[in-house]
Amino acid sequence: MEKAIFFDIDGTLLDTSSFVEVARKSAIDIMIENGLPSTKDETYSLLKEIIAEKGSNYDKHFNVLTERICGKEDYRLVALGMVTYHNVKFALLRPFSKTIRVLIYLKNKGYKLGVISNGITKKQWEKLVRLDIHDFFEEVITSGEVGFEKPQKEIFEEALNRMGCKAENSIMIGNKVEIDIMGAIHAGMSAILVNYEYDPKSKKLLKNFDIKIIDNIGEVEDVL
Amino acid sequence: MEKAIFFDIDGTLLDTSSFVEVARKSAIDIMIENGLPSTKDETYSLLKEIIAEKGSNYDKHFNVLTERICGKEDYRLVALGMVTYHNVKFALLRPFSKTIRVLIYLKNKGYKLGVISNGITKKQWEKLVRLDIHDFFEEVITSGEVGFEKPQKEIFEEALNRMGCKAENSIMIGNKVEIDIMGAIHAGMSAILVNYEYDPKSKKLLKNFDIKIIDNIGEVEDVL
Repeated sequence: MEKAIFFDIDGTLLDTSSFVEVARKSAIDIMIENGLPSTKDETYSLLKEIIAEKGSNYDKHFNVLTERICGKEDYRLVALGMVTYHNVKFALLRPFSKTIRVLIYLKNKGYKLGVISNGITKKQWEKLVRLDIHDFFEEVITSGEVGFEKPQKEIFEEALNRMGCKAENSIMIGNKVEIDIMGAIHAGMSAILVNYEYDPKSKKLLKNFDIKIIDNIGEVEDVL
Repeated sequence: MEKAIFFDIDGTLLDTSSFVEVARKSAIDIMIENGLPSTKDETYSLLKEIIAEKGSNYDKHFNVLTERICGKEDYRLVALGMVTYHNVKFALLRPFSKTIRVLIYLKNKGYKLGVISNGITKKQWEKLVRLDIHDFFEEVITSGEVGFEKPQKEIFEEALNRMGCKAENSIMIGNKVEIDIMGAIHAGMSAILVNYEYDPKSKKLLKNFDIKIIDNIGEVEDVL
């Protein structure tokens, strides 16, 4: 019976959050150097507010930022910010140090590998392709493509279906308790939690299920 | 009385068309190497058809390309194509060899400089910022921003208005006869045609007006 392992992308295969912070701060530095009338700290707080308000997939955060600070959009500053953001992001985009090693290890053990990711199809695929890790995965399923997102059962079912594997023979590896882990459990899969950041709500959820918790993706080798 | 010179971007300040062709062909090579079942020539012809059909500002040309060749969208091939396209494009993006020299020359002669460009605001600004030539220009006017495009009179009027210059003291430099040159003339400005590619229709238009024609942007120094 074929066994499948599905991975989340952001925070699981690669460290999105730290490069995003550096990229945002670099963009703000350049915008201020070029005349944005604000301080670094205030601008960063405001940018985070705008991202929380508009969602992380909105593509005009910097436009809104200049509008709120300057009274109207400043296209020059927006372009300076965006170019800097993308340059820094692509320069820093790397898998976690143990990611490739673990993917090779699992392939060698005969697992079929896949990705189940919430996000815009184009952006998620771009990360896999820029890191050159896409060939490890037989199936890449994004919420943008299938119209359902984790923790909805349907996205896991679609993934299992495409992979030709049964839920009971499949494992989801992710870093979000409610989204990756609970979603997989409700779809009948087992799950491994990685890079877990403690919070009371998820702690409570974890109590009721038998979930493997590992500190970093390298430890997959200890449990599989 | 202040004198202003406005530039078109693509084909005037920088050579968009040659890098676009190289970038598209590189993207196609990678897609074919990774399994796109088609030949290079057929795929390039098909891509050009799709661009003509959907317009150059449509952002899913590669999606449609894989759909038409494979029967359905192939997100992996789309991502490989897009990442390659953008990498090559940004690697090759350069002003024409005489562009910077001419901008400095005109600044030294006391002209106010601006840009009037048809296109998506974000993309046109991105080119200026990536080339680090944005500081030469006091005003950058894009059709995406103002809602009118060359040759419509309104975009030229908006540009003159922002620059605080009169039409009779202003010159438009561009490579498209009907769009840049006729548009400027109808707005009361004078015009210089650069990188002119002969065609019968534009030849006829040019006959009726006294338009300076120069071979490349470097020759601006000979006429101003």
